[in-house]
Parts: sequence; C-alpha cells; structure tokens
Amino acid sequence: MEGKTAFQSKTIVTDLVLPSETNPINNLFGGELLARMDRAASIAARRHSRRIVVTASVNHVAFNRSVPLGSVVTIEAKVSRAFSSSMEVYMDVWIEDRESGESIKANEAIYTFVAVDDTGRPVKIPALIPETELEKERYKAALRRKQLSLVLAGKMKPEDATELKALFFDN
Amino acid sequence: MEGKTAFQSKTIVTDLVLPSETNPINNLFGGELLARMDRAASIAARRHSRRIVVTASVNHVAFNRSVPLGSVVTIEAKVSRAFSSSMEVYMDVWIEDRESGESIKANEAIYTFVAVDDTGRPVKIPALIPETELEKERYKAALRRKQLSLVLAGKMKPEDATELKALFFDN
Amino acid sequence: MEGKTAFQSKTIVTDLVLPSETNPINNLFGGELLARMDRAASIAARRHSRRIVVTASVNHVAFNRSVPLGSVVTIEAKVSRAFSSSMEVYMDVWIEDRESGESIKANEAIYTFVAVDDTGRPVKIPALIPETELEKERYKAALRRKQLSLVLAGKMKPEDATELKALFFDN
Amino acid sequence: MEGKTAFQSKTIVTDLVLPSETNPINNLFGGELLARMDRAASIAARRHSRRIVVTASVNHVAFNRSVPLGSVVTIEAKVSRAFSSSMEVYMDVWIEDRESGESIKANEAIYTFVAVDDTGRPVKIPALIPETELEKERYKAALRRKQLSLVLAGKMKPEDATELKALFFDN
Amino acid sequence: MEGKTAFQSKTIVTDLVLPSETNPINNLFGGELLARMDRAASIAARRHSRRIVVTASVNHVAFNRSVPLGSVVTIEAKVSRAFSSSMEVYMDVWIEDRESGESIKANEAIYTFVAVDDTGRPVKIPALIPETELEKERYKAALRRKQLSLVLAGKMKPEDATELKALFFDN
Amino acid sequence: MEGKTAFQSKTIVTDLVLPSETNPINNLFGGELLARMDRAASIAARRHSRRIVVTASVNHVAFNRSVPLGSVVTIEAKVSRAFSSSMEVYMDVWIEDRESGESIKANEAIYTFVAVDDTGRPVKIPALIPETELEKERYKAALRRKQLSLVLAGKMKPEDATELKALFFDN
Repeated sequence: MEGKTAFQSKTIVTDLVLPSETNPINNLFGGELLARMDRAASIAARRHSRRIVVTASVNHVAFNRSVPLGSVVTIEAKVSRAFSSSMEVYMDVWIEDRESGESIKANEAIYTFVAVDDTGRPVKIPALIPETELEKERYKAALRRKQLSLVLAGKMKPEDATELKALFFDN
Repeated sequence: MEGKTAFQSKTIVTDLVLPSETNPINNLFGGELLARMDRAASIAARRHSRRIVVTASVNHVAFNRSVPLGSVVTIEAKVSRAFSSSMEVYMDVWIEDRESGESIKANEAIYTFVAVDDTGRPVKIPALIPETELEKERYKAALRRKQLSLVLAGKMKPEDATELKALFFDN
Repeated sequence: MEGKTAFQSKTIVTDLVLPSETNPINNLFGGELLARMDRAASIAARRHSRRIVVTASVNHVAFNRSVPLGSVVTIEAKVSRAFSSSMEVYMDVWIEDRESGESIKANEAIYTFVAVDDTGRPVKIPALIPETELEKERYKAALRRKQLSLVLAGKMKPEDATELKALFFDN
Repeated sequence: MEGKTAFQSKTIVTDLVLPSETNPINNLFGGELLARMDRAASIAARRHSRRIVVTASVNHVAFNRSVPLGSVVTIEAKVSRAFSSSMEVYMDVWIEDRESGESIKANEAIYTFVAVDDTGRPVKIPALIPETELEKERYKAALRRKQLSLVLAGKMKPEDATELKALFFDN
Repeated sequence: MEGKTAFQSKTIVTDLVLPSETNPINNLFGGELLARMDRAASIAARRHSRRIVVTASVNHVAFNRSVPLGSVVTIEAKVSRAFSSSMEVYMDVWIEDRESGESIKANEAIYTFVAVDDTGRPVKIPALIPETELEKERYKAALRRKQLSLVLAGKMKPEDATELKALFFDN
Repeated sequence: MEGKTAFQSKTIVTDLVLPSETNPINNLFGGELLARMDRAASIAARRHSRRIVVTASVNHVAFNRSVPLGSVVTIEAKVSRAFSSSMEVYMDVWIEDRESGESIKANEAIYTFVAVDDTGRPVKIPALIPETELEKERYKAALRRKQLSLVLAGKMKPEDATELKALFFDN
C-alpha cells in the first residue's frame, strides 16, 4: 500500500456560529465545537484511508479562546500520522472577525480514528508522508501521544514509553 | 474603497450527507443542498464586504447529479462580481466517492447577496477584481445575469438588455 | 393516464420563524426559506404524480421582502405544468403580521421535480389541467421557462427556443 | 371586541415524515407529532387573538393510527371556543398514502392556549363564532372539557360541573 | 412473567432550555416539553417491558408553570401501572433556578405506551409492583384513568366505569 | 464559601440513539457523544457553582465501546474537584441493551469548566468535598491531571509537576 501525503487528506470546514449554538454569554458551546471537529476530522481520516472510519479517542483539547456568536469558524484538518489501522488527525481552528476580517487561532485539537470494514473490523491503511516542517514535527510528536494514550489505558508500562519519558527530562 | 480579489472571499465547506437529510431513494434533498449553499455563499459575501449580508436572489440552479447518502460534499464559493451594494457569489459543488476517492462536479450555483448596515439599509462595498481566466469569464457573465434578473423583475426593458440579447444572436 | 387539476396538488405549509433560523438583523435566512419551499413543492409534486419525486431545478428566486423573526410564513404550492416525467411547481409565499393580522406577499418561486421509480429512473406522469385564469397563465409561461432552462444547459439552440425569443420582441 | 369565526383562525400544516423522526418500527414518534400539533395550534390561536400565545394544556390525545415513514401528514387547526383569555384549539390530523393518494384520519387533538402581553399577563380576546354544524358541536363540548379540566385541577367541585355530570347520566 | 417494581423503570432526563426552543416571551415551547416527555416516558416503558414501545395516548397535561430560557429541566419517569400489553408512565417535571439552586415542580404528565413486536403487534408485559405510598396511589388511580379513556373513546359505557363514577360522588 | 459534596452536583442524562446520529455502521457518532457529555457535564458544573459555566478543556477521551443505534445511553456526571474558579467533572457513560436490560460501561470522560460572571470573568466557587472511596480517588487524581494540563500548555515546568512525575516512577 502506497503512502499518502498529509495534504491529500486536508479538509476545510467553514461555518457560522448561530444563536441556537451559544451559551448564556453568547459564545459557541464547547460541545458543539467538539462535534464539528469530529465531523471535519472524520472526513480527513476517510480521505486518507478511503474506508469507513470511527472515532477512537480525543486527545486533550483546551478551549483557550471563546468563539462569539456570529463568528465565522474555520476548521482545517489533516492526518498527522497513520499507524497500522488508526490515524491521528490534527486540527487547527480559526475564528474570523466580521468587521476587521482578521483571523485568530482559536485552538488546536487531535482526534484518533480507526478505519474499519462493513462489519466494524479494523483494516490496514496507507502510511502518512509528512512534507512541511510543521507536518514533520506533528508526525514525530504523534508517537509520544500514542504512548501516553497507551500508558493511560494501562496497555503500556510507563518505563517502556521511551518517547514520552524524554518529555520530562531532555526537553 | 479598494477592490478585492475573488481569492480573498474563497470559502470552502465540506460535509457529509447524513441519513436524516436524504429522500426515499437515499439521495440528499435538493432543499438541504440549497440551504448549505446559502450558508457557504453568505460567508464568501461577508468576507468580501465585511458587512452583514442578506440573500437577495438565487439564480437558476440545476441538480444534474444526485448526491448519495454517505458522500462527502464540498462547496467552494467565491464572489464573482460586486455591484454598488450587491454581490454575485459563484459556487462549484463536488461530491467525493469514498472508495475511489474520486471527486465529481455535482453542480454549480449562483446566489446574490446585498450588504447592509445594522438597520438593514444597503451599504457600499469594494469592487471585485477577477484574476484567473475562469474568474474573468464569470465576472463578465455576471452582468448578463444581472440584466436577465432585471428583465424578469420588470425593472429593465428587454430591448435595453444589450448583454443579454447578445446571447440569442451572437453566441 | 388521466390528467389532474392544479387544485388536486395544492399544498399549504404554515410555520413560524424561530430565533435559530434568523440572521444578525433578525430575518429568516434565505437558505432556510429555500429548504422549506423545497419540502412544500415536493409534496405538491408527489400529490400530482403519486411517485417518489426528486428536485431537478430551482428557477430564479428573488427575495424581495425580508421575513422577520416571529412571523407566520405560509407557502402555497401547486403543480403548474406537467411534462413527460417532470413537473413545474409554482409557489406563493405570504408573511403575516401578528398584531394587524395582515398577510403580505413575500415572494414567488418555481421548482421543477422529476418523478422516479424505486431505482431512480424517470416515470410517466399525468398531464396538468389548469382551471383558473392564473393557473392558465402560469401553465403557458412554464413552456418558456423550460426552453430557457434547456438553452442555459446547452441542450437547445437559442434560435429554436421560439417561446423564449418572443419575450424579447413581442412582449 | 368583535367576535371572529373559526374559519378565520384555520391553519393548515402539511409535512413529510422523515427517517430521523421515526421509531424502530418506522412510525412517527408520538412526541414529534405532539410538537408539530403544538406549533399548528399555536398559529391558529395567534390568528384568533393577534397576541403572543402560550400553551396552557393538552387534552387527552389518543394515537389510534400509526404514521409510517414517508407519509404526508396534514394538521388542520381551528379555534373551537374562546373564553376570557384562553382558547381551545381543535385539530384534525390526516395521513396520506403516496401510491393511492388516499387520505385517512389519523387522530384528533385539543390544545388550550392563553393569550398574553409582553410581560406574560393574560389579556382579553375576541369571542369565537361557530358556523358549521361540526364547529357548533365542538363549541358546545368545549365547555364540558373546561369543567373537566377545572375538576381535575381541584379548582371546581365535581357536583358543580353540571355540563360534565350530564355525561354520566343523560348521555 | 414476573412482576417488576416502578423503581426498575425509573428514568431521569436532565437538560437545558436553549434559545431555539423558546417562545417570544422566552419560555420553553409547550410542544418541545411534550416531545421531551415522550422520549423520557418511552425509555421508562422500554425498561419495564424490554420491548419496542409506541405511544398510545397522552393524558390531560396542564402547563401550570412556565419554564424560562436557561433553566435546567429534569423529567423523572416511572411506569405507574401495567395492563396486558400497555403501560401507564407517570412523570414529574422540575425546573431548577441557577442562582438559588432551588428546584420547583413544574408539572406532571401521564403517557400510555403499548409494547409491540417487530411487526407492530401488541405483546404481553410484566405486571407493575408499586412500593412507595405515592406509587400505590398512582397505581390505583391508573385504573380510573383507563376507564375515563375508554369512556371518552366510546369503548365503555359511562355507567360501567365504576371507579370513575366514584370520583363524582364519594370523593 | 461552604464546600459542597459531589453528590450535590450529580446529573443524569438518559437518551436514545436515533438514526440521524449514527455512522455508516450504525453506531453513535463520537462527536455526538462528545456534545451530549458537554451538556451533562455543564449542568453538573452549574449545580456546583450556581454560575454560568464555560467549557475550558476536555481530557483524553477513549471510545472503547461502540454505541449501537437504538441503545439507551445514560451519562452520569459529578464534579470531581473544584479549584479556585474551575471544576473538573467526571462522567461515567453506560449503554443498555433493550432485550437483556443489561447495562454496560461504555466509557468515562473528564471535562473542565470555568465559572464566570455575566461579562465572562472567572469567579470564585465552593470547594468540592468527596465522600465515597471512588470520589476520593478521583479527587486525588484530579490534581495530577491539572498538572499534566499545565505542562502540556507550557504553563508549568515538567520538573515541578510533582504529582505527575510520581506516575512514572512510583506507580
């Protein structure tokens, strides 16, 4: 199976923040953004694998910046690394001010998907080939995140998570 | 007011076709696609004008190709021409097959928006500067469409619609 | 197959404009009205043909009057002409003021539907028999619109569109 | 304040039953029909009173006939009697089979609304003038239903509910 | 078939009132609450019967207290009595003030469901065993309500509705 | 400000999985579950703080078990620890099989909320008092998670995250 570039899975979803999606101080509900990101990321994962994909996990997501009613929100999703049948998808989220036209980074998020067949069994997928500097950096960090995830799930001993341990010493 | 390129208003909206949006033969409802296109086009119009925008009209839209359940639909919208306070937005719609990864043109659509202030009164907007061959062609045809629209609304005499009449003779 | 009157397909859809369907100046989104009209028109087409129907095209729609939050919107749809397997549906849209009770015409719209079997293939449908003066007028104009549509799609030469050409000379 | 006929408040809502609104045996959810009826009835109450209206109560509703996926459902609502500031709205619900075109009565329902001002306080409304035989019958029965409602709420002694008691003896 | 306690079917649904669900004076639509109660009650009925359940009827529901935007609404549903294949579900609805944390009873409602097999035919279900004082009281009253329902449907003569008649004399 | 127990914020949300919320292999979308959990957790956070709350972050969430169409999903949310103005909310998610009535743990999730005033500024909130063994364990682990979050955000040096480092050595 031939590898594919991150660019080939790039998915852009642009949408407005409507009144029915905002909390009492007129900002987009966190849960609504989580759901939109899941849709965007799943399309990127599908483009990479050409398979049915199911959400396996969501990495830590911080909502650093509130998204006000009436904003235009743009989610850009790209597969950052592919493992045997799972893919990490990295997203950058921007909000755009109507009057200034300025675009501000709202947050980043990382979701993991598994490619499955019609019966729900995992299937093999192509490797991911990072091209830009940023893609390469995210590709490398994806391994650390996978180890953290395995440690947290009790499927890997902390002392074996070599990439992860480095974080606390060499960094 | 400085002009802006079509590229500056470019808006991409990618989304899945879900079961709740399909008709009895499992294709996306026409009305659902019309509504999605209105959202995409309104964001493009807003990016060009940096104003509140309201839908003024929808040009003739033909649904040449059905959009099956589970497809990924991508709408790409760009302002094709700006008049005093109204903008024509041209959209290309693609559908993508999951297994082959192939992208097919589903249809095109043209919506017109008016930029308004908070009280709903039309406001002046920047001119549109077409750059590519396709953008220039659409820019030119926009005038014909505006004349057709005025003729159909009874606001212009057919014999004065010079650009439009040319369609039936020189074309 | 026996013909049917326009009255037999008459469909009335009345509904409120809710906050989640309005733009920043508190009027109904154009796209939301387009979707509601598609539902109303599809029921009229279904009543005429007793078949599954799919949206084939939307004629030019002008939003001449904004529809404010809290209005009651009434769409009245009737088949205006039937061709071999396609139907033109003509809609009149009114908005109603709560306090005065007054009803104002908001706009008109024309959608075209095709009747299909379970596999999506077009099927023959009954002829439409216009009865009132208005129905007869719309029935006649439907042919001109069909020609315009064929010309725009490149499926008819402009010089063969006899009904359409008349618009620019005899009108 | 001048009285108004039942006809003046007549409201028709026609809509399709979509997959997202059906239970595991492919019939419309009861709760979805209750919500649609509330919208239809509130428009009728608003047309009679030209006021903001709020749902006060729902009479006993029996779902005698299931409403299958893909049906066209038509709700016809008319005010059946007006009291000082409350109105009883009577609804007839039909479902329509696509192939035969036949329309079958699915059920009836009775909702009560109160007309209020902007602060939520009840306001006086016009009397209802029944015209047809059916309207007169429903108008008369509305009083019995009001008494039953007061008895059940503990606001009227059963022995004072003269209209209601008659049900159990003279009927 | 062994009986089951009311507690075994207890279902709690807690949710917020969002802007898109409120009327012009910012209270939850009656129809929206009716739909939410149908969902909660159907889950309780399903837990009791372990079958597909369909809404058979809704008892008289009074909306004594409006539910303001931003409230937390809690619906608690329990089966109150089971007959051969139908179940009465009794619901208590509370609203909660954000600042005081106080919980106020908004209203009660009673829905009836029928348990069916995959083809929609009624199936036998377990008996309901009331335990608390309140459960016993509601269990007893359920029979009166069933009689009222049969009388109103013309399926029982008023003079045979012994439990119901008692209401008007001995109560 | 007096502390509050975890029990006081306990929030239960029970709901069905409908067809419009499922992926091509008929399981609930991950994004839909993320949004439901956000609503449940925000109510728990609001009950603890009696303030407007906004989602600050979502901890790592693993979807270990798919949630099939037609399941009943129950989310139970409780505040697990309160800091100065932020709260960690811990959720347990169960799915219930209709026929067996069995309830299986689907997954756990941890969201963090900040309590704010009407202008969006953080406000002080009561401390959380854990009572059961499980509550105490989650209370203790919440500090480790907060440190991990600060390290990942670059707001704390890894060597200062004493609680977190312990994970990799003493555990």
